[in-house]
Formats: sequence, structure tokens, C-alpha cells
Amino acid sequence: MSSSIKALIFDVYGTLLDVHSVIEKCEELYPEKGKQISQTWRQKQIEYSFLRQLMGNYTPFSHVTADALRYAVHEHGYELLHNQEQTLMNAYLHLQHYDEVEAVLKEFTNCKRAVFSNGSHDMLDPLIKNAGLTSLFDKIISVDDVKQYKPTPASYLHALNVLGVERHEVLFMSSNGWDISGAKSFGFRTAWINRLHKPTEQLQVPPDAIYSDLRGILEWK
Amino acid sequence: MSSSIKALIFDVYGTLLDVHSVIEKCEELYPEKGKQISQTWRQKQIEYSFLRQLMGNYTPFSHVTADALRYAVHEHGYELLHNQEQTLMNAYLHLQHYDEVEAVLKEFTNCKRAVFSNGSHDMLDPLIKNAGLTSLFDKIISVDDVKQYKPTPASYLHALNVLGVERHEVLFMSSNGWDISGAKSFGFRTAWINRLHKPTEQLQVPPDAIYSDLRGILEWK
Repeated sequence: MSSSIKALIFDVYGTLLDVHSVIEKCEELYPEKGKQISQTWRQKQIEYSFLRQLMGNYTPFSHVTADALRYAVHEHGYELLHNQEQTLMNAYLHLQHYDEVEAVLKEFTNCKRAVFSNGSHDMLDPLIKNAGLTSLFDKIISVDDVKQYKPTPASYLHALNVLGVERHEVLFMSSNGWDISGAKSFGFRTAWINRLHKPTEQLQVPPDAIYSDLRGILEWK
Repeated sequence: MSSSIKALIFDVYGTLLDVHSVIEKCEELYPEKGKQISQTWRQKQIEYSFLRQLMGNYTPFSHVTADALRYAVHEHGYELLHNQEQTLMNAYLHLQHYDEVEAVLKEFTNCKRAVFSNGSHDMLDPLIKNAGLTSLFDKIISVDDVKQYKPTPASYLHALNVLGVERHEVLFMSSNGWDISGAKSFGFRTAWINRLHKPTEQLQVPPDAIYSDLRGILEWK
């Protein structure tokens, strides 16, 4: 492996797995509003994880995700019924992985491979299993072990400690620009999987590489 | 004044002053895209303040605001030229205050009145002056004095220390749901100025009162 990379760390939601594959389930429950509700749900899920960290009021991601769903549903004039919450939270455990994930991961057998997510283990472990990705990873790492959401330095430090490598030996992948900024600021090498062709975040920590999907990282092999 | 309130603290952007009054200037520079650019600008401005705090990489709000503008312009396919940046940053120093601000403030002469903002003094001081609001406030307080963006507890503590009152003696006003959540979590009494009729944030710290504009706080008089 080039460049002394000893570990690959992958974000999960939006990076390995398509978070908008819950749109169909949302549309079943809320006809015509499914797409908007699932987008607000995702946006508020991220915002609430930031806010709870800033307020010093950490709560696991499963709780944050349910709170974000309730907000998204309220915004469109609905109440969230218990069975609807169960149906939609369950949909978050069954996300589709992006097409190229398995083939790319199988090319990197000579280094540690981990997922690292804001998701708590009650969401993350069944999700990776249901997506059929368990055998491709050495570790499933959650910020919940240290109660520090990304992009705090303490969150990335936890992933580093679990893997037992040095910062500069890590190549970190995320589709979220803010996650890439946090990881780069911490000292990882970073590949931004820019699936949605967004502009680079203006946070003065640009990524080392930008790819439109995970196949781009094969050049680090 | 009822309820032993000794100080009123007001957020600035979106609460006293209308941040979307820069839309016209944006539309002059970017025909047809002005509204979208100004909305993205505001959204990224807030997000970048959160991210820099979480990353441990504080930068003053004037810098964050220029960064957010650059992102917003890039998203719509433009480059940000130096004179355009100057024009638009200057527009942020000349925001319109909401109609009811002066009349409401003049009803509260028996307690301390302060503005408290994520804005750095280079933005905040000329803004309040240009809006003609200087004489209505005892203090203009910026998080920049302690390098802690709202909604961290340390930011609200700074405002409290400047005013020399106790937490429960403060009535805090903001149009931003996340700001109200942070202030309530810290221990202020809170009135959410919900100008856009948004749903309540699902962060388990609901506001003490919700009003559609500042006239609502007259019942605390």
C-alpha cells in the first residue's frame, strides 16, 4: 500500500450506505411528502448531534435520530404515531450500500478496515449486518463509546486508539464535507467521497483527495 | 417587572434584525439566484460556527461569515470576486430591524437590556449603530470575548458574567430554536421569537414562551 497507509476508516451514513433509501418508506406513510421529510430528517439528525455536543448534553444517535424524525414530521403538519416511528426507525437499520462498496473493500486486504460512525451500536451493528458488510471490516467503531460526536478531535482519537495506528497512517473516507474537515483537522489523510458534487467546505482544511465514489481510493492501493 | 426578571438578553441576527434583507444586494450581484444564495449563506454561517467550535478551531464570526458566503456563491457556480465580497459583507453591517423592536424595548426601562451574539465586535458594533439601536441597550456582548460560540454553556455564562445577574433572573430572546435550546439548557428563562412559525426543536428543553414577534414579551413586563 502506497504512502504508508495502515488503516482505512469509513464513515457509514451517506458514505457506505445510502441514507435516502428510506424515502420510499416515508412516501408510503406520508404520500407526496416522503422526499422532503426524509431530507429534513437527515438534516436535523446531523444538526441535533452537533447541538447536543455543543450544549454538553450528549444523547445516543438512536435517540437523536428519533427526535429528528419527530421534528421532520411536525414540520409537514403530521404527528408521529408510535407505529410510524417504529417503522421508520426500522428502515434506518436496512439501508442499501452503494454499488461499488464490496468490490473496492476487497482490494484492501493488506490493511485494517473499519467503519466509524456517529451511530450508536444499537443502530450501527444491525445496519452493517443487514447490509451484508460485516466480513469486510475488522472493527465497527461508534462515537458512543466515548460520548463524543464527530467532528470533535476526541471522537477521531477514539477511532485511532481502537485501531492502534498513527494519525498519518490513516486514510479516512466520508461523503460529508464537515466530517472530512474534522478528520483532516485532527491529522488523518482524507478522501472526500463527494457523491453529490458539492463545493468544497470553506473551513481551511481541504481534503487530500476528492472522488465521486469509493472507486477513487483504489489509487491509494 | 414580574417573575424577578432583572435582565433581557436579545440575540441579534434574525431576532432584532432581518438577515434576509441582504437578498436584494445578492440579487443585484447574482440575478435570479439572490434568494437562494442568501439562504445558503445564512445556513452555512450557522453551520460553520458550530463546526469550528466542535473541531476546536475557533475563528471570529466575520471570518466565518465570509467563508460561508464563498461557499454559497460556489454552490451556484460563481467565483467570489474581492469587490463582491466587500459589497456583501458590507450589506451584513446594514440590516433592517424588525418593526416592533424600538417600541417593545422602550417598555423595559426597569431592567438591564443587552444584545448577545455570535457576531464579533467588528460586525456587531457597527450593525447596532447603523440600525439606530445603540441607545436602547446597556451592553453589546459578543461571544468573541471568550471564543465560545453559542450554544455552548460557556458562551451564555459569559453574557451572565458581563451583566452580573443570576441565570434565573434572565429572560433570553432568540428567533433561532437552537439558541433557545442552548439558553434554556444553561438555565435562562427563554422566549422563542418564532417569526417563521417553525416546529419546536426536539431537544428536550422547550422554551418558557413562544411568540410570533417581540411584542409577546410585553407580558413579562
